[in-house]
Amino acid sequence: MKKLAVSLATAAMALGLAGTVAAQSFQKPEDAIRYRQGALRVMAAHFGALGAMANGRAPYDAAAAARHADVLAVVHTLPWSAFTPGTDKGETRAKPEIWSEAGKFKEGHERLHNDMVKLVAAAKTGNLDSLKAAWGPNSGSCKACHDNFRKD
Amino acid sequence: MKKLAVSLATAAMALGLAGTVAAQSFQKPEDAIRYRQGALRVMAAHFGALGAMANGRAPYDAAAAARHADVLAVVHTLPWSAFTPGTDKGETRAKPEIWSEAGKFKEGHERLHNDMVKLVAAAKTGNLDSLKAAWGPNSGSCKACHDNFRKD
Repeated sequence: MKKLAVSLATAAMALGLAGTVAAQSFQKPEDAIRYRQGALRVMAAHFGALGAMANGRAPYDAAAAARHADVLAVVHTLPWSAFTPGTDKGETRAKPEIWSEAGKFKEGHERLHNDMVKLVAAAKTGNLDSLKAAWGPNSGSCKACHDNFRKD
Repeated sequence: MKKLAVSLATAAMALGLAGTVAAQSFQKPEDAIRYRQGALRVMAAHFGALGAMANGRAPYDAAAAARHADVLAVVHTLPWSAFTPGTDKGETRAKPEIWSEAGKFKEGHERLHNDMVKLVAAAKTGNLDSLKAAWGPNSGSCKACHDNFRKD
């Protein structure tokens, strides 16, 4: 029962942006920058591992794919709350448009969320074709935001 | 049903080290280093947010505590598989003892895991005293490994 209670809460959090976690009130701008970079790096690693399977660069492993999906379900919700005002300077590639076009930025991570929910489900079907079909849109969601909101 | 299926898998993964996620086969040593640093940074942020509540530096917010716990349940399992051989050089504070005393290092993150499972449960009770009681041992688990395995 304990496992079930934990798991239901986790799913509720992971599958709805309404439950997006504000990590904390960051003490310094660089704390927020490092936090979001950390979350994005973890997200990229697990997303990349699914991509390697989807694109045939790694053997398909259904159990591993499901585990990557579990991590992504939680981690993809984390970076956005750390793009707080004043965190556009320092060791960051964040473009000013994140704040000056905040609505568009929000649309971008909502798009990612919607695609990610589908990817998480697909990665847990045990079916490689489902994974392949769901991976592409997510890759596009990543790229769209990087093109618009990340410096080269 | 979809949510439940996702959630059960997440809980199974999060609450047992047997399900620890190997992120991927890292292409370069620095990829593993950045991944584990990212995961540890996210873990520290959410753990710190619970600590602020446990230690009275932030107001107790039961819903926020539960969300931090959901993140920690997943993220605390991630860093360890990225301490792969050959990742002791470069921009890392990892001490050589991580590899030369691998059994002791493993004991350290197993201790953290055991304490973290209790913290996750306590943070979801809605009771500040439970959170306080469970936070301390985790702080000790962090410190023990930092003292032994992390350069100043």
